[in-house]
Amino acid sequence: MNIAIAQSGGPTAAINASLLGVFRAARKSCDVERIFGSRNGIEGIINENLVDLQQIIATEEDEELLKQTPAAFLGSCRYKLADVDKDTSAYEKIIACFEKHGIGAFFYIGGNDSMDTVAKLSEYMKKENKSIKVIGVPKTIDNDLVHTDHTPGFGSAAKYLAVTLSEIARDISVYDTDAVTVVEIMGRHAGWLAASSVVLRENGDTMPHLIYLPECSFSLQKFLSDVREKLKTNRSVLAVVAEGVGEKKRANTASDGFGHGQIAGIGKYLEEAIKSEIGCKVRSIELNIMQRCSAHLTSVCDIEEAEMIGASGFAAAMMGETGKMMTFVRTSDEPYQITVGTVDAKDVANKEKTFPEKWIAESGNDVLPDAIPYFLPLIKGERPMIVKNGIPLHFILK
Amino acid sequence: MNIAIAQSGGPTAAINASLLGVFRAARKSCDVERIFGSRNGIEGIINENLVDLQQIIATEEDEELLKQTPAAFLGSCRYKLADVDKDTSAYEKIIACFEKHGIGAFFYIGGNDSMDTVAKLSEYMKKENKSIKVIGVPKTIDNDLVHTDHTPGFGSAAKYLAVTLSEIARDISVYDTDAVTVVEIMGRHAGWLAASSVVLRENGDTMPHLIYLPECSFSLQKFLSDVREKLKTNRSVLAVVAEGVGEKKRANTASDGFGHGQIAGIGKYLEEAIKSEIGCKVRSIELNIMQRCSAHLTSVCDIEEAEMIGASGFAAAMMGETGKMMTFVRTSDEPYQITVGTVDAKDVANKEKTFPEKWIAESGNDVLPDAIPYFLPLIKGERPMIVKNGIPLHFILK
Repeated sequence: MNIAIAQSGGPTAAINASLLGVFRAARKSCDVERIFGSRNGIEGIINENLVDLQQIIATEEDEELLKQTPAAFLGSCRYKLADVDKDTSAYEKIIACFEKHGIGAFFYIGGNDSMDTVAKLSEYMKKENKSIKVIGVPKTIDNDLVHTDHTPGFGSAAKYLAVTLSEIARDISVYDTDAVTVVEIMGRHAGWLAASSVVLRENGDTMPHLIYLPECSFSLQKFLSDVREKLKTNRSVLAVVAEGVGEKKRANTASDGFGHGQIAGIGKYLEEAIKSEIGCKVRSIELNIMQRCSAHLTSVCDIEEAEMIGASGFAAAMMGETGKMMTFVRTSDEPYQITVGTVDAKDVANKEKTFPEKWIAESGNDVLPDAIPYFLPLIKGERPMIVKNGIPLHFILK
Repeated sequence: MNIAIAQSGGPTAAINASLLGVFRAARKSCDVERIFGSRNGIEGIINENLVDLQQIIATEEDEELLKQTPAAFLGSCRYKLADVDKDTSAYEKIIACFEKHGIGAFFYIGGNDSMDTVAKLSEYMKKENKSIKVIGVPKTIDNDLVHTDHTPGFGSAAKYLAVTLSEIARDISVYDTDAVTVVEIMGRHAGWLAASSVVLRENGDTMPHLIYLPECSFSLQKFLSDVREKLKTNRSVLAVVAEGVGEKKRANTASDGFGHGQIAGIGKYLEEAIKSEIGCKVRSIELNIMQRCSAHLTSVCDIEEAEMIGASGFAAAMMGETGKMMTFVRTSDEPYQITVGTVDAKDVANKEKTFPEKWIAESGNDVLPDAIPYFLPLIKGERPMIVKNGIPLHFILK
């Protein structure tokens, strides 16, 4: 039997570790002959754009480099399969490609859109009496997939965020003047990443002073009054804001005088509001795609788990599973322990897990310390990197 | 004799290593009794806001933590001394503080504004027949101080930039669609930092495809045509732009339809221009203060040199020098070799060293490979960090 692996959705720093997990497990198996990589997600299957991974990932150094390379090595896509009762043309091309290349199992590393593909494709296989297994391997920095304790990629993004915020905290504290800094964090509907910044308190930092999540309703007046309150006891105030905060409200009030709310995001919007209403020194920072691609700052926990869940995905397919997404089940925070499980991909597809209300402060502007034991294990461990000229090397598919 | 150390200007990841350099050298000297730290630059001298550094930096671990802490540990200021023929009140307070605390030498770690303070203060000391020595220790991520090969803080900022751009290069390459990414880099008048991104080519990266410096005249039409040209042979185009690029022109054309040019900076301005004129997927990224405070990604070369030049500053004062800034003199690129020299601080104050024309491509949109041997040694070497809970620890003055 041959197998195929593809990667989909937005980049993370751990998505290639999951690819490597499937790859290494498959290579060890005497049931597997060839291991194909599909370029640009499912599109590579549809268009028969495959590469031979055993030829490409040839040495142990290749494997290590792949593991420290951010963003989908095989390329990604945002392709969504049509409903099978509407248009089966893509499904037919996929089956043709699988059969032509003797592919008996397909592994799709991605987020909830990708699990939609896993669910639809595995259903179609069953309907057409094909024994081809389809397994989903989770991936997203947003940590918003249901039925799994967390997602590979999240821990490294949270570590990047914690380290970067602690450095920003030092930077913004050097002058003896009132100042506010607003840091905008990815997370449109789920605030896991912004919320994870609470871990800084565990290291004795008082920042961030304020944390706003899309799970809470947002009022600009309340925000300004929160900032004024914090300025009473702090020279330099640091507020962390998830990008989805107040999204609807801003769309409705694009002409409220603070301008660019829709265009430039919540950070810039709040910066202008503070400038106009409070009048102190203010700066907004968008951590942008660095949050998801900072491979030089991954957590050992995240990268090792990402590889492990890829390997478990392969094992699940070999045991006859299909239409499943692999999951993490946490059995203990301290000592940190997880096991791997499975869930029907259709129960994950197109759903979002938001940050639990029980961990949000009643004031709606902070995260409770109770959340820290959840986050802490995920950001632990520093990975040594293979470096040339002071820059970590990447493994690039030409 | 006692001494005092202060830090001034914008944060860097190496400014505390220079503080440590002066501190360690002074502590070893039998001529020095007490080592004061002045809070918030020269303001701490004027307001007699001093701390006892020997009490604060008490253990070897304190020293290591200080060395990995970004941004001025003692706080900073933007204070500029009045001309001595206009107002001597601050000078008198400074001398009173120095004499009260038996301070015989003052070390000011900062950029060209700080060297103005060093020059004025040392002149005043001579005029008043005071034997107090005043020495400047250079610091700036902008690398724009004259009479020194480079400045402490620059190498780490350049390393942060190289590593981050290489990760961004992976991230923006995953989709099979035309896309342009504009990364805005600090540097209002001097493009050293943006120019340093050329080092990525040494590691086989083709990105960034375009590099724009404030040293070159800027035309939006030429920029758009450069981007169109690069899109012919690249799916994903990466342009690096120094913040000062086209500054005057944008100020004059704030109502040219691309809006927010002045408010949001060159990156956003170019993003909107590309969106409107080329119409492909486009994203702008501002690396913001992370460029100057990313202590988790410093270069060994930069941190060791920053400490060394601080120690040399102390030695210079002990040899009777005053009114001088310490400098690096490069004697060889490969193997990399430098010596330390001195220059009159007044010859550095209020001047800027721009990026050499000989290293800029004739097209005005790239940096020549000839510049690589200059940059390469400065970004080399990875520093191990003291970490707690996955986050590097900092040394904080309460």
